[in-house]
Amino acid sequence: MIKIGIIGTSKISNQFVEAALKIESCSINMIYSRNYEKGKIFGEIYGVKNIVTSIEELGKSDLDMIYIASPNSIHFSQVIELLKAKKNILCEKPMGISEEEVNEMFRVAYENNVTLMEAMKNTFLPNFKAIQKNLYKIGEVRGFIGNFSQYSSRYTDLKNGDLTNIFDPKFGGGAHLDIGVYPLYFALRLFGIPKKTVGGNYILNSGVPGIGSIILEYKDMIANIFYSKITNSYIGSEIQGEKGSILIDSISNIKNIRIIYHDGSEEGITVPQLENSMIYELEAFLDLLKQKKVESDVNTWEISKNVIKIITK
Amino acid sequence: MIKIGIIGTSKISNQFVEAALKIESCSINMIYSRNYEKGKIFGEIYGVKNIVTSIEELGKSDLDMIYIASPNSIHFSQVIELLKAKKNILCEKPMGISEEEVNEMFRVAYENNVTLMEAMKNTFLPNFKAIQKNLYKIGEVRGFIGNFSQYSSRYTDLKNGDLTNIFDPKFGGGAHLDIGVYPLYFALRLFGIPKKTVGGNYILNSGVPGIGSIILEYKDMIANIFYSKITNSYIGSEIQGEKGSILIDSISNIKNIRIIYHDGSEEGITVPQLENSMIYELEAFLDLLKQKKVESDVNTWEISKNVIKIITK
Repeated sequence: MIKIGIIGTSKISNQFVEAALKIESCSINMIYSRNYEKGKIFGEIYGVKNIVTSIEELGKSDLDMIYIASPNSIHFSQVIELLKAKKNILCEKPMGISEEEVNEMFRVAYENNVTLMEAMKNTFLPNFKAIQKNLYKIGEVRGFIGNFSQYSSRYTDLKNGDLTNIFDPKFGGGAHLDIGVYPLYFALRLFGIPKKTVGGNYILNSGVPGIGSIILEYKDMIANIFYSKITNSYIGSEIQGEKGSILIDSISNIKNIRIIYHDGSEEGITVPQLENSMIYELEAFLDLLKQKKVESDVNTWEISKNVIKIITK
Repeated sequence: MIKIGIIGTSKISNQFVEAALKIESCSINMIYSRNYEKGKIFGEIYGVKNIVTSIEELGKSDLDMIYIASPNSIHFSQVIELLKAKKNILCEKPMGISEEEVNEMFRVAYENNVTLMEAMKNTFLPNFKAIQKNLYKIGEVRGFIGNFSQYSSRYTDLKNGDLTNIFDPKFGGGAHLDIGVYPLYFALRLFGIPKKTVGGNYILNSGVPGIGSIILEYKDMIANIFYSKITNSYIGSEIQGEKGSILIDSISNIKNIRIIYHDGSEEGITVPQLENSMIYELEAFLDLLKQKKVESDVNTWEISKNVIKIITK
């Protein structure tokens, strides 16, 4: 049985726990919250009684892995402390809020011989693998429009004077870190590390990007990353090849994918996928533990390092 | 009767002549081609007998206006010579192939008090005006994805070793000049001149961009220009506001536009539009002649200058 500890009690932690409970070999053994009452309420939903309020207790426990979904700016100190306590860690994206932080996190993971992976879920989805498998059909890939724009009700709050984590620079907020990393990670996983990047943002009054874009220049293609927390997008994303294009409904969940060829014909390439999209990343992480590998060969340390480097440039 | 002369005998000139013949006050009086036979064949289709092979003859004629659709690199010398001969000119996009060329063209037009307009058609379309009219409905505009990617059969030729004008740097070829100017012009007309731009291209063996992208950074929004002659796109373009987004099928013809609001409701805002999309720019140009105005207040000299400056940066 893999004993799991959880840091963070917001919505995404619920989704993670529900994913874990679908996997037979997993049990949720410990919940961390700075606020004991909040941790207790979260634990009660899933029958977890072991609530702790210090990271040290997580480190001293017999947990096999820890899932971290605290505010972005807090990841670094928690991950470093727990790596040093030899805990395997699945850390929500973005791992850290600067290139330096992320480099140091991987260095310490390597030094302590423990598994560390960024919880970017889209690269593990069956529909991501379907894209990889079918990519050859559209010929040489020349263009990518990776677009993730989702209006946040927190932006309404912000305009009403209420600053929440997601738009607060102190907590590593901003559209780039919260949402831009999805299409960027997608691109780096599928097309590799670009040779050059340029970008632009519209910075909100709180000091973080509300909407922005990055151009990735490759040797033989152009990828375009577009992200927003202050608008919605309805056109999806698109991989453009010399023989056809792959249309993708959502870059984070990838529920519907189809190819349109240059002769106008269409081919659906969607495969069945569980509703809870976090199961796949967790299964991949458990597989790393089983194999005693410190690094994923899907969400590699190189990709994680380059994503934070590019998005914060 | 407005007497029109035509430079260039390719497909776009056919479309222009057919637009002109739909307008009662217009007559096509002269065709210029370097190759007399080609000019004659073109003229025969429309009953035009006056074929000339030198620009000087166009200048000495009694034509009221000249429409120029020669290869991009030739626009400059032809426009300058004809402006000095006091001819009013509607010149296909891109007007020139460098900022210096375009600046000089407008200077000479001003000096000679003749009308000069860039034939960018999309800004005159009824559906462009429908976008302008309805733009307030989506709240503060924060994002624009202006995407025009159209595979050219000339690219197949290029890969087979046959270099045509469209991919030849000597003739001002390249996806940026041929197709990138459409979404860029659209953005500058709708949102104004950006404060900063960055971009990237994939350069073909012939030396011109095959696909590329530009980010326009405004004070309070981000616009993204994406263009390609070596791939197709099927997702269209999108203007993103804080209350909803406007989805645009084609940035050059704009035949279908609809708003999706944040509550999921949709509103079609398409208006009827003639199939020949060049009629509207010609009517606007004729109106300038009637009003004896040298510059359009839609396709302004400032926009034309900034488009070529940004796209060739």
